[in-house]
Amino acid sequence: MSSPDILSTVQFYVDRCACDLSLDENVIEILKSPQRELQVTLPIRMDDGRLRVFQGFRVQYNDALGPFKGGVRFHLSQNQDSVRALAALMTWKCSLHDLPLGGAKGGVICNPKDISKAEIECLSRRYIRALYSFIGPARDILAPDVNTNPQIMAWMMDEYSCLAGKTVFGIVTGKPMELGGSAGRSEATSLGGWYAIREATTYLDIELKGAKVAVQGYGNVGYNAARLANSFGCRVVAASDSKGGILAKEIES
Amino acid sequence: MSSPDILSTVQFYVDRCACDLSLDENVIEILKSPQRELQVTLPIRMDDGRLRVFQGFRVQYNDALGPFKGGVRFHLSQNQDSVRALAALMTWKCSLHDLPLGGAKGGVICNPKDISKAEIECLSRRYIRALYSFIGPARDILAPDVNTNPQIMAWMMDEYSCLAGKTVFGIVTGKPMELGGSAGRSEATSLGGWYAIREATTYLDIELKGAKVAVQGYGNVGYNAARLANSFGCRVVAASDSKGGILAKEIES
Amino acid sequence: MSSPDILSTVQFYVDRCACDLSLDENVIEILKSPQRELQVTLPIRMDDGRLRVFQGFRVQYNDALGPFKGGVRFHLSQNQDSVRALAALMTWKCSLHDLPLGGAKGGVICNPKDISKAEIECLSRRYIRALYSFIGPARDILAPDVNTNPQIMAWMMDEYSCLAGKTVFGIVTGKPMELGGSAGRSEATSLGGWYAIREATTYLDIELKGAKVAVQGYGNVGYNAARLANSFGCRVVAASDSKGGILAKEIES
Amino acid sequence: MSSPDILSTVQFYVDRCACDLSLDENVIEILKSPQRELQVTLPIRMDDGRLRVFQGFRVQYNDALGPFKGGVRFHLSQNQDSVRALAALMTWKCSLHDLPLGGAKGGVICNPKDISKAEIECLSRRYIRALYSFIGPARDILAPDVNTNPQIMAWMMDEYSCLAGKTVFGIVTGKPMELGGSAGRSEATSLGGWYAIREATTYLDIELKGAKVAVQGYGNVGYNAARLANSFGCRVVAASDSKGGILAKEIES
Amino acid sequence: MSSPDILSTVQFYVDRCACDLSLDENVIEILKSPQRELQVTLPIRMDDGRLRVFQGFRVQYNDALGPFKGGVRFHLSQNQDSVRALAALMTWKCSLHDLPLGGAKGGVICNPKDISKAEIECLSRRYIRALYSFIGPARDILAPDVNTNPQIMAWMMDEYSCLAGKTVFGIVTGKPMELGGSAGRSEATSLGGWYAIREATTYLDIELKGAKVAVQGYGNVGYNAARLANSFGCRVVAASDSKGGILAKEIES
Amino acid sequence: MSSPDILSTVQFYVDRCACDLSLDENVIEILKSPQRELQVTLPIRMDDGRLRVFQGFRVQYNDALGPFKGGVRFHLSQNQDSVRALAALMTWKCSLHDLPLGGAKGGVICNPKDISKAEIECLSRRYIRALYSFIGPARDILAPDVNTNPQIMAWMMDEYSCLAGKTVFGIVTGKPMELGGSAGRSEATSLGGWYAIREATTYLDIELKGAKVAVQGYGNVGYNAARLANSFGCRVVAASDSKGGILAKEIES
Repeated sequence: MSSPDILSTVQFYVDRCACDLSLDENVIEILKSPQRELQVTLPIRMDDGRLRVFQGFRVQYNDALGPFKGGVRFHLSQNQDSVRALAALMTWKCSLHDLPLGGAKGGVICNPKDISKAEIECLSRRYIRALYSFIGPARDILAPDVNTNPQIMAWMMDEYSCLAGKTVFGIVTGKPMELGGSAGRSEATSLGGWYAIREATTYLDIELKGAKVAVQGYGNVGYNAARLANSFGCRVVAASDSKGGILAKEIES
Repeated sequence: MSSPDILSTVQFYVDRCACDLSLDENVIEILKSPQRELQVTLPIRMDDGRLRVFQGFRVQYNDALGPFKGGVRFHLSQNQDSVRALAALMTWKCSLHDLPLGGAKGGVICNPKDISKAEIECLSRRYIRALYSFIGPARDILAPDVNTNPQIMAWMMDEYSCLAGKTVFGIVTGKPMELGGSAGRSEATSLGGWYAIREATTYLDIELKGAKVAVQGYGNVGYNAARLANSFGCRVVAASDSKGGILAKEIES
Repeated sequence: MSSPDILSTVQFYVDRCACDLSLDENVIEILKSPQRELQVTLPIRMDDGRLRVFQGFRVQYNDALGPFKGGVRFHLSQNQDSVRALAALMTWKCSLHDLPLGGAKGGVICNPKDISKAEIECLSRRYIRALYSFIGPARDILAPDVNTNPQIMAWMMDEYSCLAGKTVFGIVTGKPMELGGSAGRSEATSLGGWYAIREATTYLDIELKGAKVAVQGYGNVGYNAARLANSFGCRVVAASDSKGGILAKEIES
Repeated sequence: MSSPDILSTVQFYVDRCACDLSLDENVIEILKSPQRELQVTLPIRMDDGRLRVFQGFRVQYNDALGPFKGGVRFHLSQNQDSVRALAALMTWKCSLHDLPLGGAKGGVICNPKDISKAEIECLSRRYIRALYSFIGPARDILAPDVNTNPQIMAWMMDEYSCLAGKTVFGIVTGKPMELGGSAGRSEATSLGGWYAIREATTYLDIELKGAKVAVQGYGNVGYNAARLANSFGCRVVAASDSKGGILAKEIES
Repeated sequence: MSSPDILSTVQFYVDRCACDLSLDENVIEILKSPQRELQVTLPIRMDDGRLRVFQGFRVQYNDALGPFKGGVRFHLSQNQDSVRALAALMTWKCSLHDLPLGGAKGGVICNPKDISKAEIECLSRRYIRALYSFIGPARDILAPDVNTNPQIMAWMMDEYSCLAGKTVFGIVTGKPMELGGSAGRSEATSLGGWYAIREATTYLDIELKGAKVAVQGYGNVGYNAARLANSFGCRVVAASDSKGGILAKEIES
Repeated sequence: MSSPDILSTVQFYVDRCACDLSLDENVIEILKSPQRELQVTLPIRMDDGRLRVFQGFRVQYNDALGPFKGGVRFHLSQNQDSVRALAALMTWKCSLHDLPLGGAKGGVICNPKDISKAEIECLSRRYIRALYSFIGPARDILAPDVNTNPQIMAWMMDEYSCLAGKTVFGIVTGKPMELGGSAGRSEATSLGGWYAIREATTYLDIELKGAKVAVQGYGNVGYNAARLANSFGCRVVAASDSKGGILAKEIES
């Protein structure tokens, strides 16, 4: 599903839910637009001495329930529309779990595989500098997402703390445990997914025990989802990532 | 000239100047992108009790020389591209006059003729609230522009001061003289235009005295430009605004 | 008991306790005066377009043990004296329970039954704006009181958060649970009253089980006190509010 | 004229002017109340080791035109009413001279003749601590007044600077010239009075040259007024202060 | 062991550990220097009216893991070298226990036995004023140490809170329980010592039960260590402080 | 004159002046110690990837008259003593000219000739980060000094502005004119020297016109002093810098 489709899909579901819930028109109007969007230009001195200019985003969708919260992606194929859609989804996710948090999403257009570790550190710190007066533990909290990991979160936290003149643990989640990160964070998203599957199969009266499972994507989420399949009584029979897929023999035939 | 054209035109001239000046490629790269852009959603309770959601912008182009500075427009036919182009132009204008200021531009998509004075006050204040942590007398200074006037600047200054908990005269220019505005502000833009014309005609060896002048647009700038024509020895023979134009008889024939 | 009486009564008990405790004269001197009092003028645009000016108060009695804490009343018959007395009482209450909190009280002179919901929202927000640099989660925390409810606390929290540029849950207690309020808050004051009655009756050797109870006032506190009577083994036989009272038949005769 | 009279007198003139100017009722309503009043309790350790509690005030009347500005008095016979009246007068004075300043007034109830220099320093610093989050160079600026002098202003500026963590020259006027005070400050009030007299006598067609002058009060203002009489062509023939008065012989007879 | 020896000893162990751990040279370089050191001059008005100037220190060794944390000593025989060594030790202690805290140490050169209680209060408050922009609950947290006690911590917390304009419990540990201090704080250091002894004797296969114990120093730590000896099955047979020592008879012979 | 000598010399003159002026002992005590000294460790990633740790200083001598003000040196042969002496001299210089400024001095121990331009930028920015909460336009203002120039001042101003989130022109003097620097700044120190010489020769009754001048040091100050000699009627006959000296022939013989 390409990015613009995500936005349409999200808006389609908002309309449908609003209709089912007979929401006031004024409320719908507000729910369909992000509160604030920031686009920043990040000039980075590359290892070879040249300057390269990257585009960064942050969409703060809705903070009626509490500070904005959402991941930061480092990826080439994203734009303001897809980030907007993902920020909206964060809003509904937090709200449906009664969390005192709003929804946001951010990212930098880049291919992290093409840039060195030092350049990624530089980019991560520059992104925080550009967003500084816009985020904070009681304002907007960043989290790891596609191509961003605990090390990047540590750089972001360090840069934010440096600008704030004090240690600010609460500006990011997903940081290393040595820096105050939470145990279990790396498999939390996958585990959350499995809980949702368990509830859904119970609701739909599907037998989860013994089910065959195909895993699409094999990053942090997919890998852990596969790893956790056994503990939910399931068996992984297929897996794929951006480069290809494999299938258990029994399925192939 | 429609808005996208403005952006292309601006970028065309940047390239041409960069070439003439043999600018470093890295520098050109930075000069061609705005540093930050903010897009905000402004829900306003209209006089009839309904909520209406407006879109607001602020493009901060480049602050290498000092705080950003630029107007705020209330107009229907604008978008992020046109605002970006105008912010770039503000940057070159400040820079070419050796002012310790950068360039910015902002606006709200609306037709001020369709909304009441109370609604405009509300919109002006809401715009400042949404931009608050982004602007300031040493950060980004707002100014009147298309459809914004001293009264609107006063509301913006009042809202900013209220949020800051102190009187902040420096957050806007173009405010009423009673609130610390500068004498001569209302004709300053026109007068600046005349000075430019005077320098250009001298440079091009054109006789300004006795010249016939056509004025396009008759808002604050056009009106004062026409009014000042005499003092530069010129005679206005034609004028037009968004609704039509008139021509002196001698020209018609 | 009219308001000036409250202040005299409070001061009478302070003197008596100070005497019993053989307090140092210097300490008594400090305990008998509030640290700070603020009186603010709140101009509100009423629904009919006219401006009306309300008087608001906040008395911060003593914060030796921690941030000030106390309710906000919207009521006609209050003045600086009565608010001062209630702020003193908050101080002793927090102190006697070893809470790391000081005592405060505030209010706006108005009859909430005479003004619309929109006007009350406006008044609540204006009150927070006027007090902003005076209060805070580590400075002075507001709570619901006579004629102020969770909705009003939500408006106050929203206005404070807006001025602070971040979500500040800790500025008010008694907010709705959706916004981080505590479960059990609505009956907390009544329950606290019952606990005090239980301790007092034990101390005085009065049998609480089977006792007949008269409830004076039937707002949030009185209503819940009546509702909780059963669980303490008591029976409500009389109740009254500002408009009248009723009596169980068995008592009447 | 006793203090309550001052307030009545001030309100009488506001009504009369409002009537002459046909002011909008809403505007009159706002002009007749001070925006904020602060009352603080100042416990001071006296030289003999005992604690004494003083009452301090600050009335911020109206800041529509700019930061509040007004003197601080150390005097026994003052109260919130008289301070309120003087704050209102400061507002009209600044406004009538087109100064970008509002009006305020403050004071501490004490007899400076009864307390030592060290105690006065202590009281001055405590007053600033109690008002700190309420005042500032762009919020409310203090000035010397009855029984407060450049030395007291220096202590106040030092305490404010200490709390702010930086030198804040703008928090007080009337400070010593070594600390950034203005030359001519000590005779400024008297000189302003003479300018007013000069304008008034011109307007009323009274001959100022050769006029006989009686000076009531002989503090900083009265003393300098007498000293400046000659330069306006007048001759002082009588003077009085809180302890008595003298009369030139020629007048006595 | 004299102070300079402490620094050499600490650096010796850092080198040895760095060698054992094969640490990167760059990392060793950073670990061997404190990040920041502050030296302040504290003029205090003594009880007799004379001014005395004290020297204060704060060494912030390393905050890679979280806010700095460490004690404040009031002692004559200390200098920047000894404070530096102790700050380094705090860093390793916090780090080895996986606490999200860095290490610091501070002090004032004085003999608290020679100065009055009022002078100590004055010195404690002045020390905080001088360090204010350098410390904080998320920056650098102070604790009691040699010759500083809960009362001094309370004065420091009060001064910091006064400068911050709000109650800041987190600026010091070791404060009185009435002001938010932790229960068990007074014996915590001794108890931690006993836990370390218990682990060490187990590791070294020494029988702790029945062991004879000599206690060097009899301040808060030594006193409580002696008091707790029984509960670890040991018997104190010797104790000493700055003025002398005693020995159980059975040992003397 | 080696650095420790500077400090002794400075203290010798303070004592002598204090004696001549019969200064109060308490005042002398304060004048002889700097108010605050900061020592910071600056880890810099060198061009070859290795980390090098530099030591930086800032001594804030006395701010009784206004914000601290003083240069920053990048030099190998300096230490806390020499910086302290130079900070004291800045204090007397500002004070004797009635400037509302205190005195300070700072530096980094390094040989700027051994490190690349990129490394110097890095060091300059790191120095500002380490001092950030310690300096400011109303707190402590930096200036160019030995081996620091307008470009370095520009980096320092940029880093400070970045941390402050706004353009702060006032944090440094000696910045390039394009960034708000003052015209005439590069020869100001030399010119000031010449004015002092002119006054001194008048006072000592020495004929300045036609005097022969030897210039010791040929950096910014020495070079401009030589260049300005003519305009004071003098003739340079000798000059020297760190590498050697030359002499006019007429003198040699």
